[in-house]
Amino acid sequence: MSSSVSGDRPRDVAHLSAVELFSHVPEETVDFFVRLMAFSEVARDGDSVYLHAWDDYERFTVKVTGASRPGIGRTWLRAAGPQALERRVEHLERTGFGGTWVDGEVGIGRTYLFHDPDGHDFGLYWDTEWYAETQWDERPRPALKNQAEPFPGRGANIRRIDHVNYLAADVPAAGAFLRDQLGGQLTEQIVQDDGVPSAVWYHLGEKTYDLVHTADRTGSSGRLHHVAFAVDQREDILRAADVFLEAGVHIETGPHKHAIQQTFFLYVYEPAGNRIELCNAGARLVLAPDWRPVSWTAAERAKGQAWGLKTIDTFHTHGTPPVD
Amino acid sequence: MSSSVSGDRPRDVAHLSAVELFSHVPEETVDFFVRLMAFSEVARDGDSVYLHAWDDYERFTVKVTGASRPGIGRTWLRAAGPQALERRVEHLERTGFGGTWVDGEVGIGRTYLFHDPDGHDFGLYWDTEWYAETQWDERPRPALKNQAEPFPGRGANIRRIDHVNYLAADVPAAGAFLRDQLGGQLTEQIVQDDGVPSAVWYHLGEKTYDLVHTADRTGSSGRLHHVAFAVDQREDILRAADVFLEAGVHIETGPHKHAIQQTFFLYVYEPAGNRIELCNAGARLVLAPDWRPVSWTAAERAKGQAWGLKTIDTFHTHGTPPVD
Amino acid sequence: MSSSVSGDRPRDVAHLSAVELFSHVPEETVDFFVRLMAFSEVARDGDSVYLHAWDDYERFTVKVTGASRPGIGRTWLRAAGPQALERRVEHLERTGFGGTWVDGEVGIGRTYLFHDPDGHDFGLYWDTEWYAETQWDERPRPALKNQAEPFPGRGANIRRIDHVNYLAADVPAAGAFLRDQLGGQLTEQIVQDDGVPSAVWYHLGEKTYDLVHTADRTGSSGRLHHVAFAVDQREDILRAADVFLEAGVHIETGPHKHAIQQTFFLYVYEPAGNRIELCNAGARLVLAPDWRPVSWTAAERAKGQAWGLKTIDTFHTHGTPPVD
Amino acid sequence: MSSSVSGDRPRDVAHLSAVELFSHVPEETVDFFVRLMAFSEVARDGDSVYLHAWDDYERFTVKVTGASRPGIGRTWLRAAGPQALERRVEHLERTGFGGTWVDGEVGIGRTYLFHDPDGHDFGLYWDTEWYAETQWDERPRPALKNQAEPFPGRGANIRRIDHVNYLAADVPAAGAFLRDQLGGQLTEQIVQDDGVPSAVWYHLGEKTYDLVHTADRTGSSGRLHHVAFAVDQREDILRAADVFLEAGVHIETGPHKHAIQQTFFLYVYEPAGNRIELCNAGARLVLAPDWRPVSWTAAERAKGQAWGLKTIDTFHTHGTPPVD
Repeated sequence: MSSSVSGDRPRDVAHLSAVELFSHVPEETVDFFVRLMAFSEVARDGDSVYLHAWDDYERFTVKVTGASRPGIGRTWLRAAGPQALERRVEHLERTGFGGTWVDGEVGIGRTYLFHDPDGHDFGLYWDTEWYAETQWDERPRPALKNQAEPFPGRGANIRRIDHVNYLAADVPAAGAFLRDQLGGQLTEQIVQDDGVPSAVWYHLGEKTYDLVHTADRTGSSGRLHHVAFAVDQREDILRAADVFLEAGVHIETGPHKHAIQQTFFLYVYEPAGNRIELCNAGARLVLAPDWRPVSWTAAERAKGQAWGLKTIDTFHTHGTPPVD
Repeated sequence: MSSSVSGDRPRDVAHLSAVELFSHVPEETVDFFVRLMAFSEVARDGDSVYLHAWDDYERFTVKVTGASRPGIGRTWLRAAGPQALERRVEHLERTGFGGTWVDGEVGIGRTYLFHDPDGHDFGLYWDTEWYAETQWDERPRPALKNQAEPFPGRGANIRRIDHVNYLAADVPAAGAFLRDQLGGQLTEQIVQDDGVPSAVWYHLGEKTYDLVHTADRTGSSGRLHHVAFAVDQREDILRAADVFLEAGVHIETGPHKHAIQQTFFLYVYEPAGNRIELCNAGARLVLAPDWRPVSWTAAERAKGQAWGLKTIDTFHTHGTPPVD
Repeated sequence: MSSSVSGDRPRDVAHLSAVELFSHVPEETVDFFVRLMAFSEVARDGDSVYLHAWDDYERFTVKVTGASRPGIGRTWLRAAGPQALERRVEHLERTGFGGTWVDGEVGIGRTYLFHDPDGHDFGLYWDTEWYAETQWDERPRPALKNQAEPFPGRGANIRRIDHVNYLAADVPAAGAFLRDQLGGQLTEQIVQDDGVPSAVWYHLGEKTYDLVHTADRTGSSGRLHHVAFAVDQREDILRAADVFLEAGVHIETGPHKHAIQQTFFLYVYEPAGNRIELCNAGARLVLAPDWRPVSWTAAERAKGQAWGLKTIDTFHTHGTPPVD
Repeated sequence: MSSSVSGDRPRDVAHLSAVELFSHVPEETVDFFVRLMAFSEVARDGDSVYLHAWDDYERFTVKVTGASRPGIGRTWLRAAGPQALERRVEHLERTGFGGTWVDGEVGIGRTYLFHDPDGHDFGLYWDTEWYAETQWDERPRPALKNQAEPFPGRGANIRRIDHVNYLAADVPAAGAFLRDQLGGQLTEQIVQDDGVPSAVWYHLGEKTYDLVHTADRTGSSGRLHHVAFAVDQREDILRAADVFLEAGVHIETGPHKHAIQQTFFLYVYEPAGNRIELCNAGARLVLAPDWRPVSWTAAERAKGQAWGLKTIDTFHTHGTPPVD
């Protein structure tokens, strides 16, 4: 009987909840999300616009903030409860990753801000506004009360955020942070011939991955590879490709199926240049508490994606902000 | 700011892993699972046949056991770790639901057996055989090493088990057991006009539900409403309907979309009469640690399923074993 | 060798091109088609609004005309060429079904108007405006030049008209007209126990059916059972069901698969009450020039649709205009 | 009013019905079609195996013939009737393309054999065996009597043959043959910078194309680019990609959407090296009797397929038989 030695990991971080994207053309970025991705605008505050995906139980999913250059701002994570939040903050402070408490912002309460070793900005919180509780009085209600907003039936019909893929100068360090500070579990990774991982996929719950780090070949820190949003069916991605084609959005690669994690994908650039993935995992979950991480070699990667598509060059070179 | 009072629930039970079905025509039931549902037979032991769904990381997904009447036998749950297993057993014993340890069986190690208040049989364990580790030497390996078995490309192509829906004489008691003894979280429920729930959907992780209790109108105990299996896309369910049509399998209702939980579904009876659901949840997850359970009234239920299909009478009357 | 005796039928009528719907709430009907079905408004003339489906090579697909009651107005058919038009008119006149020439209207030229034995109004023509030739200068062009309009990515994304299903007091007479006067070929039919057909499906080309007659149980003449529109994939119909659910459109029945013709379907009522079908035939075609019509008995019909859905009562009783 | 000058074309050739493929590994080719493509073997005769796709109303769809090298043998076309057959043969003989009558073979009667200018072998016939009439007594019958065989629910579940894409040394000559001798209508084409077409897509009925010629860059004659088979949904193609991946079949390119004709496609090589396409056209048809052919320039082609996939090199170089 093969007995695993792992399991029993802490589950203090419940899920990825929202992400902030910087844009030098914020209205174009907002239009991309609202018209083509089917988000709704739920608030404006200063240079920022808050956008909501129709099945997000919280107040916002994407915050678009005007900036001189594209890139990723804050990533919000929701704690598994008030005690989990305290435990996690204590752990971060004890291990030298401590940050600061802020009052929160549109839709979310008191938030603990910190950075991963690569400099990406995170906010961890418990108190949150439920979309249904605060928005249903003034905004359209869905026909089925077990979803936040009416199904938009428009463009890509994005249901929810799925994951963030960060570029990091030191992938092992960034991955260790996800594991040791946030309680993430490694599900798959790319391991270079020298044995060093160049990309690591971590999950928090049953989804196959939530937070990913990919080696930044430029050696820069704090950059974004892509933010991914989930749609219900692979057919939604095929249809979205036609929507993007008509709208003149740059389609980088796909639709196709990743060998790693088997996700069906499409990559486009929103108007500011941030790479956006549409993804569908089918019914695939990683349920094992002691999941054995799957490692992929450079040789295996050379075979291309699941059905043979070669990885496009820009996938290795394009990140935001651009490196001068 | 709406602050939730819940969260921080124990996460000792990781996931539903397998189920035992009784059949008075076991070879026909096995043929249904192997030929039409695309399971593979992985072991035989006495009157039982062990069947594996292609993306189950463990050794088996369904155990078919010859018996005088159809129905559900044991439900296996995997603990979140060795400490979680101990904690949970201690909790069960302390709260009067204690059972017994057994050595385990094909594919799984030492197992703690207990019953819910309605008499359904459960087994909780940690040690398990990984399909990849024990079967790849003698059985076909998949093209992609992040799945257990080759994609079958046959019949309904079931990826994994999804949930069990039990019939229970006392639904509130059965639900309380899932919450208090197993750490489940109520996501949706049907509440009768007298305020008493007649069906409760509980989840353990991010999936929208794993264990469900529905009122047994006959007042019997320990019966089964249905076992559900997940496919990757709604299209898989439409195709499966043609497969069942050709095979002469009784299609009870569907394909359609549930209002409750929004699952796309198809219900059939396997040859022994146990109701089997094929389901696809799209990208829907319940991520909130403090999810507000959605309650449906009899009046709302009267509208039928999401797109108006009236619930078929047998859905309320058929369970296994039949009541004499 | 089984040698067919048929074949060599005239092919003078090329295809169904457009239909006129009467509505007592014409703006609501137009809104249904534009917002939910993704048609575009291309012209207004008097009480009529002309609507275009994105892959219709001609100028319009549906003409909505204000009227005191719902129902079907004219059905337009395009001839296979100028000689075919002349031949067909000559044939109609010779066989006692002659009508009158009119100058045509928005988008189509000189048109020969006539009626089928049940009183339905038809227009046969050759000269037509190509959408691309007349509309691309002032309206959005598609990204791919082999379609008329940009893919809308909105609501049901209807590609084209598919078929018209008329109610007729005398189905055999109406069917004989399609065969003898229009050159249609019977592909499937429902035959009552007395041997008389109560529904007949005729096609003109390779599509499995274009013009259908169903027995009008009220004995009325000239009424409509439904007009059907084609979408690309079955998934489009599932998504459209959510769109209609959110919009409060009455979903009569479906999605499901017809046993007859195997079409995947969804039936809704547009705001005036005219029944609208969304359909997808997959890759099914009837290519045989000597196709043996498939006949369905009442007993076979009693089994329900392909996957067992019982035919809903209103499907047998609802037609437009309503019978007082 | 834009009046077309065309239309009224002869419709003597009803449809593409079957194709013969040469294979130096005929049993492997048969296994590919039976196990992975879901054809059934219906006859053997000498070195040939006759295979049937489940919705083909005739006796066979593909004839696999053992040969020293891969490539295409005969293409069978069914006439629109006995008179159409006579007319067409008379026309072929009068225009210098006359061939010979043979008695026919498995499933089809007296056949007129001829060649196109590039040397591809054709058989035109009227008398045919209906699968239902001759096979239902001894082989499984479908659940729905409006299809030939039971839905296989296996592998790629091919419904029917869709088109043949020939390589030709002289594309304009080959295209003119399709138009003038067979009554085909040009729907789309690639036109080189010198104004000469390098690929032409012709259809016979309402399908967007049936017979295609692509320039053979080697200057050889009589070769094959690919044979295509239709599946019902795009999802079937995605699933088939997984089936081929598991089976070790070479996937050349796709799944993706062609810009030309907008077909969703996947290209694989069967074991002998003949390129096989799986295709789905959605609900797209070319209904206009005077369809304006769509022409694509080299510059437009350089943009890649509809969603940006670059055309893979082997698509321009691989044909069968290989050129020494």
